[in-house]
Amino acid sequence: MPNSKQVKDYIRTIPNFPHEGIMFRDVTTLFLDARGFRMAVDQLLHPYAGQRFDKVAGLEARGFIMGGAIAHQLSTGFVPIRKKGKLPGKTIEQSYQLEYGEATMELHEDSLQPGEKVLLVDDLLATGGTAEAGIKLIEKLGAEVIGCSFIIDLPDLGGRAKLEAMGQSVHVLCEFEGD
Amino acid sequence: MPNSKQVKDYIRTIPNFPHEGIMFRDVTTLFLDARGFRMAVDQLLHPYAGQRFDKVAGLEARGFIMGGAIAHQLSTGFVPIRKKGKLPGKTIEQSYQLEYGEATMELHEDSLQPGEKVLLVDDLLATGGTAEAGIKLIEKLGAEVIGCSFIIDLPDLGGRAKLEAMGQSVHVLCEFEGD
Repeated sequence: MPNSKQVKDYIRTIPNFPHEGIMFRDVTTLFLDARGFRMAVDQLLHPYAGQRFDKVAGLEARGFIMGGAIAHQLSTGFVPIRKKGKLPGKTIEQSYQLEYGEATMELHEDSLQPGEKVLLVDDLLATGGTAEAGIKLIEKLGAEVIGCSFIIDLPDLGGRAKLEAMGQSVHVLCEFEGD
Repeated sequence: MPNSKQVKDYIRTIPNFPHEGIMFRDVTTLFLDARGFRMAVDQLLHPYAGQRFDKVAGLEARGFIMGGAIAHQLSTGFVPIRKKGKLPGKTIEQSYQLEYGEATMELHEDSLQPGEKVLLVDDLLATGGTAEAGIKLIEKLGAEVIGCSFIIDLPDLGGRAKLEAMGQSVHVLCEFEGD
C-alpha cells in the first residue's frame, strides 16, 4: 500500500518547550525520515517550478538544513542569515522585535549582488520577525526575494500577513492553529 | 577555459575572528558559489560511493548546511546534533572540553535505531571535540558511524588523529596548516 503520510503528519508537537504554555512544532521528526525530508524539499519548491534562482538564503539554524538541501536541488549557492556575531566577514544587520526585547540578524555584505534572485527558506513562520529581517537584509544588498517558503505556518501569529503586506510571495506546507 | 578552482580556493580567511590571533576559515564563500557548493557535496561523499547510509548527522550550525545537502543527495533522513537546550524532545547528552571550560551536545534519543549506518558531517575539524561528542552520542543509541566527512582539517590541532584513534574513517577536503 502506498504511503499516504503528508508533511504535517511527520511533525511532532512537544508541549511546554522552550517554556510553559508553548506547543513546539518539532520538524526534526520530518527531517529524520528520508521520505518526509525529500517530500518537504520538493513541496517547498513546488510553486517555483521553472523559476530561476541565483541563491537560496536560509535563516539560522533550522533553515540551514532545508536551505542546504534546496540549494543542492536547485544547483544554486547558499547564503546563511545568522544571529548577530556569528558571521566572520563584514556584515549588514537588521534588528527585529521579540516578545520581550529585540534581536538582530546579519548577512555578509558581499554575499549577494544587485539583481540576484533569492529564495528565502525556514522551517517555521510565526510572527514573521526573523523572516522580515531576512528580507530587508537581502533587499539592502539590491537582491530580490522571489519567494519565501516555510514548512509550517502558525496563522494566529500573523507572520504570513506581515510578509504579504511587504509584497512577498509566501508558500507554506501546513498550518497549526491555536498557537 | 574550464574553471579549475578547487574547494580550498573558495574558502576565505578572516584574521582575528572570533578573537585576536585566530585565523578563521570562512566556508560561507564556498557555500555562496553554486559550483563550489556542489563540488564540496560531491567530494565529501567521494570515498563513500556505493556505501549505504541510513542517516546523515550534522553538527550545529554550519554542519546543517552541508548535512542537509548531503542527506538530499543520498536520499536519507537528516539528524541534527545540537548545542544543549535546543532540541525539544527527550535527548541524550555528551560533554566535551573547550579551551576554557566545557560544552555539551545533544541528540534526540529516538533519532537513530540500533544498527543504523550514519555519515557525520561538519565544515571544520579542529581539536575534534564536537565531532567526538557527536560520534559518542550516535554510538550510545546503538547506531554506527561509517564515516566522518569535513570540508577543512586543521591538522595542527589534532582532531583527525583523535577521531582515527577512536577507529573512525575520517575524510577531509583540504587542510590549513599553522592554526
